[in-house]
Amino acid sequence: MERAHSTDTAVLRMHCPDQPGIIAVITDFITSNGGNIVYLDQYVDRADGVFYMRVEWDLKTFGIPKEKLCDYFATLYARRYDMTYNISFTSRRQRMAVFVSKMSHCLYDLLSRYIAGEWDVEIPVIISNHPDLAIVGKQFDIPFEVIPVNRDNKAEMEQREFEILDSYGVDFIVLARYMQVLSEDFINRYPNNIINIHHSFLPAFIGAKPYHQAFERGVKLIGATSHYVTTELDAGPIIEQDVTRITHKDTVADLVKKGRDLEKIVLSRAVEKHIQRKILTFGNKTVVFS
Amino acid sequence: MERAHSTDTAVLRMHCPDQPGIIAVITDFITSNGGNIVYLDQYVDRADGVFYMRVEWDLKTFGIPKEKLCDYFATLYARRYDMTYNISFTSRRQRMAVFVSKMSHCLYDLLSRYIAGEWDVEIPVIISNHPDLAIVGKQFDIPFEVIPVNRDNKAEMEQREFEILDSYGVDFIVLARYMQVLSEDFINRYPNNIINIHHSFLPAFIGAKPYHQAFERGVKLIGATSHYVTTELDAGPIIEQDVTRITHKDTVADLVKKGRDLEKIVLSRAVEKHIQRKILTFGNKTVVFS
Amino acid sequence: MERAHSTDTAVLRMHCPDQPGIIAVITDFITSNGGNIVYLDQYVDRADGVFYMRVEWDLKTFGIPKEKLCDYFATLYARRYDMTYNISFTSRRQRMAVFVSKMSHCLYDLLSRYIAGEWDVEIPVIISNHPDLAIVGKQFDIPFEVIPVNRDNKAEMEQREFEILDSYGVDFIVLARYMQVLSEDFINRYPNNIINIHHSFLPAFIGAKPYHQAFERGVKLIGATSHYVTTELDAGPIIEQDVTRITHKDTVADLVKKGRDLEKIVLSRAVEKHIQRKILTFGNKTVVFS
Amino acid sequence: MERAHSTDTAVLRMHCPDQPGIIAVITDFITSNGGNIVYLDQYVDRADGVFYMRVEWDLKTFGIPKEKLCDYFATLYARRYDMTYNISFTSRRQRMAVFVSKMSHCLYDLLSRYIAGEWDVEIPVIISNHPDLAIVGKQFDIPFEVIPVNRDNKAEMEQREFEILDSYGVDFIVLARYMQVLSEDFINRYPNNIINIHHSFLPAFIGAKPYHQAFERGVKLIGATSHYVTTELDAGPIIEQDVTRITHKDTVADLVKKGRDLEKIVLSRAVEKHIQRKILTFGNKTVVFS
Repeated sequence: MERAHSTDTAVLRMHCPDQPGIIAVITDFITSNGGNIVYLDQYVDRADGVFYMRVEWDLKTFGIPKEKLCDYFATLYARRYDMTYNISFTSRRQRMAVFVSKMSHCLYDLLSRYIAGEWDVEIPVIISNHPDLAIVGKQFDIPFEVIPVNRDNKAEMEQREFEILDSYGVDFIVLARYMQVLSEDFINRYPNNIINIHHSFLPAFIGAKPYHQAFERGVKLIGATSHYVTTELDAGPIIEQDVTRITHKDTVADLVKKGRDLEKIVLSRAVEKHIQRKILTFGNKTVVFS
Repeated sequence: MERAHSTDTAVLRMHCPDQPGIIAVITDFITSNGGNIVYLDQYVDRADGVFYMRVEWDLKTFGIPKEKLCDYFATLYARRYDMTYNISFTSRRQRMAVFVSKMSHCLYDLLSRYIAGEWDVEIPVIISNHPDLAIVGKQFDIPFEVIPVNRDNKAEMEQREFEILDSYGVDFIVLARYMQVLSEDFINRYPNNIINIHHSFLPAFIGAKPYHQAFERGVKLIGATSHYVTTELDAGPIIEQDVTRITHKDTVADLVKKGRDLEKIVLSRAVEKHIQRKILTFGNKTVVFS
Repeated sequence: MERAHSTDTAVLRMHCPDQPGIIAVITDFITSNGGNIVYLDQYVDRADGVFYMRVEWDLKTFGIPKEKLCDYFATLYARRYDMTYNISFTSRRQRMAVFVSKMSHCLYDLLSRYIAGEWDVEIPVIISNHPDLAIVGKQFDIPFEVIPVNRDNKAEMEQREFEILDSYGVDFIVLARYMQVLSEDFINRYPNNIINIHHSFLPAFIGAKPYHQAFERGVKLIGATSHYVTTELDAGPIIEQDVTRITHKDTVADLVKKGRDLEKIVLSRAVEKHIQRKILTFGNKTVVFS
Repeated sequence: MERAHSTDTAVLRMHCPDQPGIIAVITDFITSNGGNIVYLDQYVDRADGVFYMRVEWDLKTFGIPKEKLCDYFATLYARRYDMTYNISFTSRRQRMAVFVSKMSHCLYDLLSRYIAGEWDVEIPVIISNHPDLAIVGKQFDIPFEVIPVNRDNKAEMEQREFEILDSYGVDFIVLARYMQVLSEDFINRYPNNIINIHHSFLPAFIGAKPYHQAFERGVKLIGATSHYVTTELDAGPIIEQDVTRITHKDTVADLVKKGRDLEKIVLSRAVEKHIQRKILTFGNKTVVFS
């Protein structure tokens, strides 16, 4: 099966104090050096006076070599405008690890997109605290590492996970209904690079058994939320959310069932935006460019 | 403008411990006495073993007189099957009071449906703690009573409200963005007969300024919830909820704006179900029949 | 992985001319013979005077043997009330064939639910007019038959398909983005037992390349429709539909991408309802019980 | 009630053949002349090679006088880049006429937003082919002109409508469930300035009685579409669409009822975008900026 073709473009994601002329300055920098802008989206937070932008340009006829671009940009603009920024190149395919426990629906959804070539990403490894889904790794011919982490052995087990992640050159991690809480140390190693799916419309029903909580409260919609993991439980920057309608007829088991479709779609939408380098985090929020 | 025509039907809403044959018993009671069932919906909560049903039948050829129906039903079935039940007649148009403060969008939505004859209901009075929307009462020729309730005079002012509500023969109350908390005494006078609209997806963002809370948390959807008012704030049985998508570009003012459409639609859906006698409450939940 | 447990229940789906007392008669038949009703939903089409019902009851303590039930029901009720009906037993797991061409997203979605035991169904065979997805059959260990049907050899190839379907005892067929039109002969062999997914909000954009048509028309939402296949193209009884929002920024390729999630979810919802025996067709419409 | 405050900004909407540097050129023109950009959104249609942009900037410190701006822009940029463009000033409140027939739900929704000051617009006149809703004009103190147009007197009656529209200085027209087809002459007078609401998900169910058509087809969702009126019936550029779920239980009357909420919300969303000058039409499509 074919893979999405990586064209050779540069992606700048940045934010800085808002000021007149900033768009003109940056777009002029790109075009006057021979870059052809293929995407530009920007947004000004007027309340806080912050300017956010994502620009992507074709490098074919761009005059500045890749390896010098960051340096040039820092010297010429970033310092002057007090920018926080990130420049990446789409020719470099990112590497994503998937963490799972026993439920397979999110994992299958991720892998079926991957195998069909929908995403410009590599999935070199799946990690699980249980052996149950090893068969899925075998189906898709992806190494499946069982690391039986629990409360008591977390530090030691996470150490093994770090080694695995490093050995596979993993850039970011997707928790596809992974039922373990990561340590602060783990989270701090991958800032804004761990994507979780929580099976509720956050901030409603934080923590364990959100479908049971939803059932008890008698809500008429259930939700799912994909967010970057931070050290506070279920409180990281939200990337994507969606809901589906339920009725009084639905039991907890029905909520679990209806929720599965939500979870996998919401998680995959978030992962896709991350792969496309379309997310910019600021404080505890995300800017998700179109 | 025309009003929805009231046919003469009886509506039975009931719940009881589940047992075999209960549907057959009740439908047989109705049809063997000449009633033509025009609606039946039922639901069994298997976890708790409770049977819920709503039946509506035409009284034209029904042999038991209205004034004796409750008595017969109680004697023949209700006691035997340990039912909690309510029988009402659609020929009696219910009377609904609307409470408002300063925002007009929900009020206009309710009144424009009322004036167009969409609902089989009377709205004899609007009550407000502010005079701002008196002009709307005038537009629709509905008495508008200003009762400037606040924390200090609540008991006294509510007394005046009770007198007004009694004088207009009000059956149930709709809080159409009414910005005052009702006393326990008030709430207990109208059990399951006070409908509120809260501008969040409950139980997220309980209490004041939910749009500000939603903005701070960086959610990607905002919601509205219509529920019966109980003595615990924003915690009563939920009747209806819905959400709408927002993005990082939306300011708090944008959320307020987008939320208005949600609020009015969600509130009106809940009010319509109440008018149609399609809601059954149990514990802190609702069964909303189709 | 576990499979959903099949309890031993009978499912009656029926419709007949509406008349008073019909619910009482049928529910009494079941309960007086020792059957415990676990589900009942009914609906009266008042315009046409038709009564529709689905009842499901536990057979554990039911006095009439399975093999005699249809006969008894026909004699005692069906003729008398002029019913069209179907009685089936959930202890018998239905057998479903999947037809595919080159796109894998719907197939993966079906198989991942199947393998996780979400559905009480067997998938004994996948049939395709292309060899591309044979690898998926291998992944899930399901026979994958390549039948290279085209316009010229359709009669002959369909004959081979019938043999395969018969040899696997297939009850119903799911066209999971199968890009061939079936012959009338084929369709008539499986009335209301062939489920298709069409990638538009039918009846908009019938026929080929619906996403191109949607793009040309400049719609703001795209849809997907799952329906039973009849001899008129894309005109069979609709089971399920859904839509997703698009903008002017979306190219045809974006529509194809956004459409994939719609297609797989809408198809799976329809298949699930079919497996649960919750669909009743009448004329060119479906009653989909809750 | 307060009206939204009109700040003094200029809005440029334009499209032209795509070329490198176009954003830099225009944003530099604005900022180097003292304009503070408060909004910028752009979009490149790569298939057709067209660049679309909407820029809005504060005029407070802008050096070029309003009355000369169009001239300058045409000379300096528009000709050079082959732009199709429009410059408008938000200090000028647009004037909107509403056309209605007998149904009030869209009219009330528009007027309740207007009276609450949600929109920066004037509604100087309502025109109807029936007197039924004259009372609504009276409620909101807006002139209500009855022009009993029909097939035979259309030319003459439209002449009277033109006079009324001119006398009130009307900029654009909203057909709020107006049940008459406008003449080509009428439509050509207000290109991209007549907004209609059609009660179906176009292009499904064009023409009369779309809810009846939807009922006959057995769809599971009904829709509403707001579009600019062109001379081909229900085929103009679509501005906004939405859908709502229905079931087999819904009669045509139920569809009409559920459709009303869709119609009013979809129409009002489209009108708001038009008032905000956020729509750009090209061919038979719209670009609707965020």
